[in-house]
Amino acid sequence: MSAQADHPTLLIPGPIEFDDAVLGSMGHPSESHVGPAFVNAFGEVLSMLRKLFITTDLKSQPFVISGSGTLGWDFVAANLVEKHDEVLVLHSGYFADSFATCLSVYGAVPTQLKAPVGSRPSLEEIEAELKQKSYKAITITHTDTSTGVLSDVKAVSELVHKVSPDTLVVVDGVCSVGCEEIRFDDWGIDVVVTASQKAIGVPAGLCIMMVSGRGIDRFKARKTPPSAYFASFANWLPIMQNYEAKKPSYFATPSPQLVRALQTSLNQILSVPLDYRFQKHKEVSQKVKKAVAALGLRQLADKPECQANGMTAIYLPEGVAASDLLPKLMAKGVVFAGGLHKEIATKYFRFGHMGVSVTNSDLGHIDKAIEALKSSLAEAGYKH
Amino acid sequence: MSAQADHPTLLIPGPIEFDDAVLGSMGHPSESHVGPAFVNAFGEVLSMLRKLFITTDLKSQPFVISGSGTLGWDFVAANLVEKHDEVLVLHSGYFADSFATCLSVYGAVPTQLKAPVGSRPSLEEIEAELKQKSYKAITITHTDTSTGVLSDVKAVSELVHKVSPDTLVVVDGVCSVGCEEIRFDDWGIDVVVTASQKAIGVPAGLCIMMVSGRGIDRFKARKTPPSAYFASFANWLPIMQNYEAKKPSYFATPSPQLVRALQTSLNQILSVPLDYRFQKHKEVSQKVKKAVAALGLRQLADKPECQANGMTAIYLPEGVAASDLLPKLMAKGVVFAGGLHKEIATKYFRFGHMGVSVTNSDLGHIDKAIEALKSSLAEAGYKH
Repeated sequence: MSAQADHPTLLIPGPIEFDDAVLGSMGHPSESHVGPAFVNAFGEVLSMLRKLFITTDLKSQPFVISGSGTLGWDFVAANLVEKHDEVLVLHSGYFADSFATCLSVYGAVPTQLKAPVGSRPSLEEIEAELKQKSYKAITITHTDTSTGVLSDVKAVSELVHKVSPDTLVVVDGVCSVGCEEIRFDDWGIDVVVTASQKAIGVPAGLCIMMVSGRGIDRFKARKTPPSAYFASFANWLPIMQNYEAKKPSYFATPSPQLVRALQTSLNQILSVPLDYRFQKHKEVSQKVKKAVAALGLRQLADKPECQANGMTAIYLPEGVAASDLLPKLMAKGVVFAGGLHKEIATKYFRFGHMGVSVTNSDLGHIDKAIEALKSSLAEAGYKH
Repeated sequence: MSAQADHPTLLIPGPIEFDDAVLGSMGHPSESHVGPAFVNAFGEVLSMLRKLFITTDLKSQPFVISGSGTLGWDFVAANLVEKHDEVLVLHSGYFADSFATCLSVYGAVPTQLKAPVGSRPSLEEIEAELKQKSYKAITITHTDTSTGVLSDVKAVSELVHKVSPDTLVVVDGVCSVGCEEIRFDDWGIDVVVTASQKAIGVPAGLCIMMVSGRGIDRFKARKTPPSAYFASFANWLPIMQNYEAKKPSYFATPSPQLVRALQTSLNQILSVPLDYRFQKHKEVSQKVKKAVAALGLRQLADKPECQANGMTAIYLPEGVAASDLLPKLMAKGVVFAGGLHKEIATKYFRFGHMGVSVTNSDLGHIDKAIEALKSSLAEAGYKH
């Protein structure tokens, strides 16, 4: 029985439930951030990230920085675009608005291509917009955590390379890396920004990025210096290259405990073929979505092809409030999340299904959650 | 016997050795960053930070953000000064250069007042400089981790309030908070920036700040918006205020595990009067410094009043290289750090004495380190 056995099961779209060994690594004894043991561990983590993102191009550059996924937007905005550069922001929920704001703070000019709630911009709309202006970058929220809408990164990236080949393809993969298929090289992606606490299965506290050789070249060709200090590739690029070469290096102190936990989790993730991991997330997602439909409930993401595999955003039935449903679920030991999208925040709830809760069915998390949802809805007076 | 019993004793100027209970909190089961249990814990942490910084002014504002101490400089540079604002940077080692660079990135104009290696600018020099220009802020590195030089924050702050009362007093307390006396209200400080992994005794990964009511007012009176997104008070101020009021709130996902570890450590620190903690660090520091002198070794910090209490930077004796000494110490289970100050990096080494290694003498860390230093020097051929 693990120390975490009797806590409520966390099934929100991040943070997710963590494996015992990963949590054990969080308690790693203190070690020097420039000592050989930690430098080796960090170097191994960076090499493993290349496998997770499926990139063998040695010009691709992984980054692991203390912070959160949000900090990754600052890195993009302060390093890969310059003042007055045009950026096309594909909007499939709350997080595009924030990414656009971040880009504006550093002087870029975002144009949002918005889809109605529960949908995503079509390829036709994107193509038309790409032909309007000379966009330096396009941003795609792979899974928008506020809506559960999945973007087709592969198709969008192919389109961009065809109609606007100089545009950098930037993916917000906070809620997708580790549970949705991402083929960094094959799909021609330039940047993926993500965080530790979702499908990568490590406590929050790390901003994780993969940048293509083209992205690094674009950074090096800047006319102006990066417009942030902590979030500067100029400061971190040599550090990451040194760590991966197993050489000590210092810009700001990394977190040995979080990096050790990431090492443990990546070792677990990569011990099974990634395609199997993606397939498993699809299967469990289908199981959840079928159970939701069987209860007569409707998802925010309207079409099957734009439904994420790591989470499900579900409209509350008429007459049932989240403030009534969520405590009933909690009483059964299941934690779901409320709504986040401003326009409809009180009208829906979110069920996260990523990581060990998906890959280790012996834990029984998903079945328990579906049962708890059924009985809590019944208690709340919902009849189907 | 704890799980961390047989690892080498880490006595570098951060990260430091951690208490078992603090490391245990790093493995806290996953919980929602907006759930009531975590919101309460985070609120308690913010309230405890007021005690750690000795501020009862309710307008003071604590911040805890995923990142590192370095990120705190971005917060200062992007929120408390604007483009073309003059900032006086007191230089007592490597870290002033970096802080000055960070200020420049965001458009402020730093003037460095430099002291020779091992020293700090005098009050007379500071007064003369303050009279030259209208400085919006002055930055003081409380303990410069590269030199072990301690600044007299109280005296400098009094001087600033006397001769340049509109200048914000900004303290880099990365290597001082938790081991050096800091009286935020009494000394009239406007900002202290620090990190988790030094005398606060928590694994790296958190940027911790205290900002005065005057500092917050200055921020609110900005003519231009903050020049960073992740490092923006505009984004984090409402979040911190909500957490302290025990209300859920979201801008970017904090790290529940690191915040839980901080809660454990602050509870331990505040269970004993702070003056006793400061006194204990002084006593142990004196013990180290006497042992260093008895070995015929010289400190970088030349005068007793400018020697830090949380670390000692020591010149290597003639003919002994750090690359020879440090592995000999490591073989005896003691980890010291090499030099960091560019001008003399290979000529000295650093001994950190903070946190449990100081407050819990039963651990025997300090005695073991002094003995290991003696015998390692002898093995390296040093005769005194």
